[in-house]
Parts: sequence; structure tokens; C-alpha cells
Amino acid sequence: MADSAEREEGLAFLPKFGPDGLATCVAIDAAQGDVLMVAHMNAEALQATLDTGIVHYWSRSRGSLWRKGDTSGQTQRLVELRVDCDQDAFLAFVEVGGDGGACHTGRRSCFYRRVERRDGETRLAFVEVAPA
Amino acid sequence: MADSAEREEGLAFLPKFGPDGLATCVAIDAAQGDVLMVAHMNAEALQATLDTGIVHYWSRSRGSLWRKGDTSGQTQRLVELRVDCDQDAFLAFVEVGGDGGACHTGRRSCFYRRVERRDGETRLAFVEVAPA
Repeated sequence: MADSAEREEGLAFLPKFGPDGLATCVAIDAAQGDVLMVAHMNAEALQATLDTGIVHYWSRSRGSLWRKGDTSGQTQRLVELRVDCDQDAFLAFVEVGGDGGACHTGRRSCFYRRVERRDGETRLAFVEVAPA
Repeated sequence: MADSAEREEGLAFLPKFGPDGLATCVAIDAAQGDVLMVAHMNAEALQATLDTGIVHYWSRSRGSLWRKGDTSGQTQRLVELRVDCDQDAFLAFVEVGGDGGACHTGRRSCFYRRVERRDGETRLAFVEVAPA
């Protein structure tokens, strides 16, 4: 077990996965700089991402390795991978193939709604519409 | 249980927490647009964030509600909260108090190292140094 100084200030890559074997990965459009999606990687997905330069996730819903874009064409070519202080979260700066989107709803980003509070009620409002 | 169409295309706020009661929240500097940190919220932290306009997380290491900045002064004033397609991840666009940083190591962002591969070896390289 690496101690926290080594993990936080060292140059050794010591990725830390949760009790479920997963770490969070935030995909960022390398050209535009905004967040496209948040997903999860297990050790296998992380390794496949580094080995191939194409971002792989672990699909929690399907329980399987998921090379993003295999069905949608929205592949994510890895431009840069960053790791956080305690090495349990990643930022993947990516170049997106296909139509440039990331969300299965057809939108570019999964974060297409904002949370609004009005008169004590919490509702959502769209910031990005679905493609026609 | 909300169905997925309602969750993905509706205006009802139906946050979904994992088996551990947590959802991922990515904090983004509202002025600069880059990612500062990735943390977790439970229902109580999310509610407190919306009620106060100051970002609260759930500290997994301490097992307690965590109003970011209480000890560091690095409070995060919520500018906008976004939710993803299946409502289990959030982006918090924030205005940071104190020295403007978010990382307990003294750096502005927790993502101060990138993962590099050279000659088959995976190592880290610093992209942001620690303050003197």
C-alpha cells in the first residue's frame, strides 16, 4: 500500500480503485475544454485506454468493458490523461470521432440540463437541445 | 422509480445515488472553465448545496458532511449546477473563495499530474507545481 505522500507527490502511477473496483473518469473535449461525460474505469479499462489510445470504460449497467464508440461511432481518442491528488479520479482529454458527441441521447454533452430553484421548487432546464 | 425517458428527457429533478448513497460531483471553476476537483455528494450534501448556495460534499474518508472551505477557506460558491442524462452525476460551476484553490496539497486543481507512457513504462509528470 502506497502511503499518501508517495501517492500525492510522487511520479509513480498508483491508480486507486474503490471497493467496487472502479474509479471515476471525466471526459473533456480536448479542443473545446468542456465536460462531455462522467463514467467509470476499472483496472482493465484503464489499461486498455493506455495501451490503445482509445478511451475504454467499464459499463456498470452492462457489467462489461466498453470501448466508447463501438456502436455509436463516437470514439474518444485520448489526447491526455490526468490523475488527481489521491489517484482515484481521472480526466481524459479526448478528440471525439463520429458526430463529435458523447451522449447516448444524441446530444454532444451528457450535461444538457441545469438544476434550477424557483419558489422553493427544484426543477431542470435544458441548456442543450436534442438534435432533430 | 422514474423510468429512463422521464429521467433523461424530463424537467423533474430525480437525482440518482449509487448503492453507497453517493453521486459524483465535478467542480469546475466558473470563471476559467477547468476542472478543480472530483468529489461525492449524498442526498444531504446535495440538499445543503442547493439550500445554501455553498457547495457541500460527503467526505468518504471522514464519513461526514463536508462544507468545502470550512477549514481551508476555499469555499465554493455555486454558480450553476448541471446534471447528466441519467441524473447520477453533477457538474458544479463554482466561484472559489480564499486563495482560489481547491486541492488540499495547496495547488489550484487536484489534477496537477498527467499520465505519461515512455518505453512501455507508465509514469506521472507534473503540470502544476505546489506553491512555495
